[in-house]
Amino acid sequence: MPDFDLMRKLVLPSNRRIILLVLDGLGGLPRQSDGKTELEAAHTPNLDRIAQAGITGLSNPIGRGITPGSGPAHLALFGYDPIRYEVGRGVLSALGVGFDLEPDDVAARGNFCTVDERGVITDRRAGRIPSEIGVELSKLLDKIEIEGAETFVRPVKEYRFVLVLRSLGLSDRIPDTDPQQVGLRPLPAVAEVPEAQRTADLVNTWIAKAKAALADWRPANMVTLRGFAQDPALPKFPEIFGLKPAAVAVYPMYRGVARLVGMDVIPVEHPISNEFQTVADNWDVYDFFFVHVKYTDSRGEDGDFEAKQAVIEEVDQALPILLDLEPDVLVVTGDHSTPSQLKSHSWHPVPTLVWAPETVRSDAATAFGETECSRGGLGIFPATELMPIALAHAQRLAKYGA
Amino acid sequence: MPDFDLMRKLVLPSNRRIILLVLDGLGGLPRQSDGKTELEAAHTPNLDRIAQAGITGLSNPIGRGITPGSGPAHLALFGYDPIRYEVGRGVLSALGVGFDLEPDDVAARGNFCTVDERGVITDRRAGRIPSEIGVELSKLLDKIEIEGAETFVRPVKEYRFVLVLRSLGLSDRIPDTDPQQVGLRPLPAVAEVPEAQRTADLVNTWIAKAKAALADWRPANMVTLRGFAQDPALPKFPEIFGLKPAAVAVYPMYRGVARLVGMDVIPVEHPISNEFQTVADNWDVYDFFFVHVKYTDSRGEDGDFEAKQAVIEEVDQALPILLDLEPDVLVVTGDHSTPSQLKSHSWHPVPTLVWAPETVRSDAATAFGETECSRGGLGIFPATELMPIALAHAQRLAKYGA
Repeated sequence: MPDFDLMRKLVLPSNRRIILLVLDGLGGLPRQSDGKTELEAAHTPNLDRIAQAGITGLSNPIGRGITPGSGPAHLALFGYDPIRYEVGRGVLSALGVGFDLEPDDVAARGNFCTVDERGVITDRRAGRIPSEIGVELSKLLDKIEIEGAETFVRPVKEYRFVLVLRSLGLSDRIPDTDPQQVGLRPLPAVAEVPEAQRTADLVNTWIAKAKAALADWRPANMVTLRGFAQDPALPKFPEIFGLKPAAVAVYPMYRGVARLVGMDVIPVEHPISNEFQTVADNWDVYDFFFVHVKYTDSRGEDGDFEAKQAVIEEVDQALPILLDLEPDVLVVTGDHSTPSQLKSHSWHPVPTLVWAPETVRSDAATAFGETECSRGGLGIFPATELMPIALAHAQRLAKYGA
Repeated sequence: MPDFDLMRKLVLPSNRRIILLVLDGLGGLPRQSDGKTELEAAHTPNLDRIAQAGITGLSNPIGRGITPGSGPAHLALFGYDPIRYEVGRGVLSALGVGFDLEPDDVAARGNFCTVDERGVITDRRAGRIPSEIGVELSKLLDKIEIEGAETFVRPVKEYRFVLVLRSLGLSDRIPDTDPQQVGLRPLPAVAEVPEAQRTADLVNTWIAKAKAALADWRPANMVTLRGFAQDPALPKFPEIFGLKPAAVAVYPMYRGVARLVGMDVIPVEHPISNEFQTVADNWDVYDFFFVHVKYTDSRGEDGDFEAKQAVIEEVDQALPILLDLEPDVLVVTGDHSTPSQLKSHSWHPVPTLVWAPETVRSDAATAFGETECSRGGLGIFPATELMPIALAHAQRLAKYGA
């Protein structure tokens, strides 16, 4: 990752603008028929044109061979070493449902589970209850009140929910209450450090009330909690990179990570052209735009090659909205690969292009695709290095040394 | 190198199998006549086919420009930073002659040398006595007995031998007794730390007896000792990477390094097809096979281009034995380059291919060779990254973060 102190020292005041366009899960694998990935199969005259004029490469979000989750992958794109700056799972879950965390809040992932008359877990996921039941039960638990803290419960999906405790002086140093196997009772919340004792007590009080509230329900008659976490108080992106950044994203998770690093979040709805238009509408207010396109990843996870290809084509068709703004630097990349053949995130490095008409040293790439990028002028590089590369091409970094 | 704690956290239980096939000293330099290296000149239809289907690159064992010894080069292939995890020279020498070191043993490299009547060194290598004399003199020294420790002497080659001291509570914090130039007396063994005093005393007692035993011999009438070292107690490969690994190697040195990281060693003899058959015979017992082919390096060191080429062709002919096992991942690489033009190890990065039918993003390589690999989809990368790459392609690593 870039040296943040060095960045702080080198950044220059400037009104040159950078767009970081992230196509979630962009990278793919070659299909059997013609050896093309989704990106290579897509008809993308605009992306191809800026790939030809710009410079390309492959980025590794976390490290070679490591498959990233969305949280760490985005931190990497924002320049943060995602191993060093770990965001706890409870916080990521809260961000994922759009919950507005305050600095002292403690968030945890929750599972509805099934226990027998002795209180022993017989199903860790309560028979994978449908999301509608999960929503209803979360509303029930959200009504719980305990002394000494506010509590909030939000549904995630199926048997999963998020619990947030709000009070000053809380601590997240509490191990999971999920024993990770059936045949055991849920564990009580315990404090790993003395400062966490009050929080553990509050959690146990809440668990007792949750158990009572669920007593008459089947199969979801109990809960377990995992990944207790607080806002990691990351160093802030505007202060490190000397930028006024805005996040344009449809999904709560990505808005949440952007907010964690100190970006302003501009509310926006699908479709992609609307996201791009939102950048245009705010062009004079910010000098850095993180624009997030979700559905490349979603269609990859569906295993639908053509549908992922179609999302990429939709991006390409809308791209002139961004190009007409004449950004000084446009970076197009993904946070990770989601090959439709694997139906999941993967470790394969991510096609990346940097377009900067005034300053780029272009390479031999004639189109935007994995194979072209693998021979591109940026090489194969850590995603955390994209920020200094983008700043440099925007001529926003001073010389180091005389 | 990969973060071992991260690896431990991400590894998944699995029965998918990985073969790491190491052709010692594989990399070469282009010959004058047609600009081909040994690997490029070799007729290798099987390697070319899997290079085409897989992904290629060039690996740097230690760092750019650094020529590796065999020990560090193999540690790198196993995922260990060879600078951080240094294995002392005495230990490498003992492993090289197949000596079975115990945890507290102290091993040192020995030289027979010539001293004059004042005890001053006149030849640091005793006129490079032939190996037969070295064997005979080593047998003589192996008979020495001292109080407080067992001692062992094994011949290496010509004027070189290995000394091992065995007793509980020994220390290797002893500088060389070799003064590195003629005209000086051999140095006494001294302790660098108080815990090494007893060991230094034992060594000096042994040296006195060795001097007496050699008194009537010429030119080898004295010894010097270098590289005192103990088993470095490396973190263990099975525990870091969640694998059950076996080493299939003909030479003691490579078996020894494999044993240092906690691999099982399967005894095997030449030829190469026999090594590959040994993998087949043990296919159900292990999920990771390190297979070592020695003679690519030996023929490179001989300076014999065609003979090295022929060893590569022998590997290619036997390769179907491994391919028929349908490994989930097959990595073919070298531990370093040994260009026959240089007749020695070199720093040139090493051609590497990863073949993984289910998960690989193939590149444009159509054959296995240095030039193709230099444009390959893996790029030019540290050899220590091969393990996470191999694990990822075997789908043995969980996602990092949510």
